[in-house]
Amino acid sequence: MLREVSAGKRFMGRLPQGADLLEALTQACVAQGITAGEVRAIGALTKAVLGYYNQQNREYEYVTLGSHLEIVSLIGDVSLKDGRPFVHAHVSLGDERGQLWGGHLAPGSEIFACEVMIVQYQSAEPFERAFDEGTGLLLWPME
Amino acid sequence: MLREVSAGKRFMGRLPQGADLLEALTQACVAQGITAGEVRAIGALTKAVLGYYNQQNREYEYVTLGSHLEIVSLIGDVSLKDGRPFVHAHVSLGDERGQLWGGHLAPGSEIFACEVMIVQYQSAEPFERAFDEGTGLLLWPME
Amino acid sequence: MLREVSAGKRFMGRLPQGADLLEALTQACVAQGITAGEVRAIGALTKAVLGYYNQQNREYEYVTLGSHLEIVSLIGDVSLKDGRPFVHAHVSLGDERGQLWGGHLAPGSEIFACEVMIVQYQSAEPFERAFDEGTGLLLWPME
Repeated sequence: MLREVSAGKRFMGRLPQGADLLEALTQACVAQGITAGEVRAIGALTKAVLGYYNQQNREYEYVTLGSHLEIVSLIGDVSLKDGRPFVHAHVSLGDERGQLWGGHLAPGSEIFACEVMIVQYQSAEPFERAFDEGTGLLLWPME
Repeated sequence: MLREVSAGKRFMGRLPQGADLLEALTQACVAQGITAGEVRAIGALTKAVLGYYNQQNREYEYVTLGSHLEIVSLIGDVSLKDGRPFVHAHVSLGDERGQLWGGHLAPGSEIFACEVMIVQYQSAEPFERAFDEGTGLLLWPME
Repeated sequence: MLREVSAGKRFMGRLPQGADLLEALTQACVAQGITAGEVRAIGALTKAVLGYYNQQNREYEYVTLGSHLEIVSLIGDVSLKDGRPFVHAHVSLGDERGQLWGGHLAPGSEIFACEVMIVQYQSAEPFERAFDEGTGLLLWPME
């Protein structure tokens, strides 16, 4: 279920303070024409919204964290959803005691500072998300 | 103690629902002939087994988590152990409250959904694990 | 605020037992002439010092963890600070119960074992940190 890809353009830089993290990552991919790839980031947030997929109810549940948090890790991929670049990222976040919180990066997470690396992937076939019956998620159909 | 490598083939894709995560990663490397490289993944598990290396007793201790968990990060490397591809990966996992658990990825962690990126490395000398006296672990002998 | 880069040399290997993690990463970059890039690592520490940036007071606060911990993830970037290679890395660390702790990797974190991957980046302009008024941090000035 793996597809060979080749590395295209690479980017390193910062995302703007005050922006929505998921939206800023998506906009960066749209601006650079990245339709497949990888993202990584570290930094800090002023608030966060985390998703947890309830595998039984097949619904995302959300946790909102109002405190200031370090982005201890952000790992994600870029692919197409409804024909447009879509960033799927998971984050772990550290509070002032060093305790970690994390999950699926949801809209509503606000950047304090964010250093990001993006690698574009080129592949023979596009990575396009579609409904997956086994999980109820939008995944890449590959056999 | 670093060795220069060059990037070979790259892969992005999904691992099968219900499979053992460590075994599926290993099989992907075997199938593609990857004997050195890097792996990264995000997704979700239906259950997890985490290892913690007791540095004093020089033994792995294991924690089993029965609940459904997000794979918030998986970072790992590929090298040879007993002449065969061996994946060494660490994972952080998020529960429904957004709390994180993590450690050394052990056999018995079952995939719900998993999106994975693998980069093959080529090097002049193979990365082959051998017993390290200082730690009691199987590490790359490099001076 | 992103800058295109190209991948230069790559390295995989181990950092020495007993060394300071941040110092060992920095020395590896200095030794290889890496002034921009990415680092990733997994492994274990004998003790750790984590930073948390207090966004209101604009000061780093530190948490010291005396127990043995798995390095569940280390993600970071390399750039220049005062004209010299500077590693900015965030870590998540797992204890014997599988609970995670994490934040900004600070001096004083001692390696038990560490497997590291470094990718050098080449860019038209150097990545040089400078004081950022919005955050009080040393960031890359890019508009």
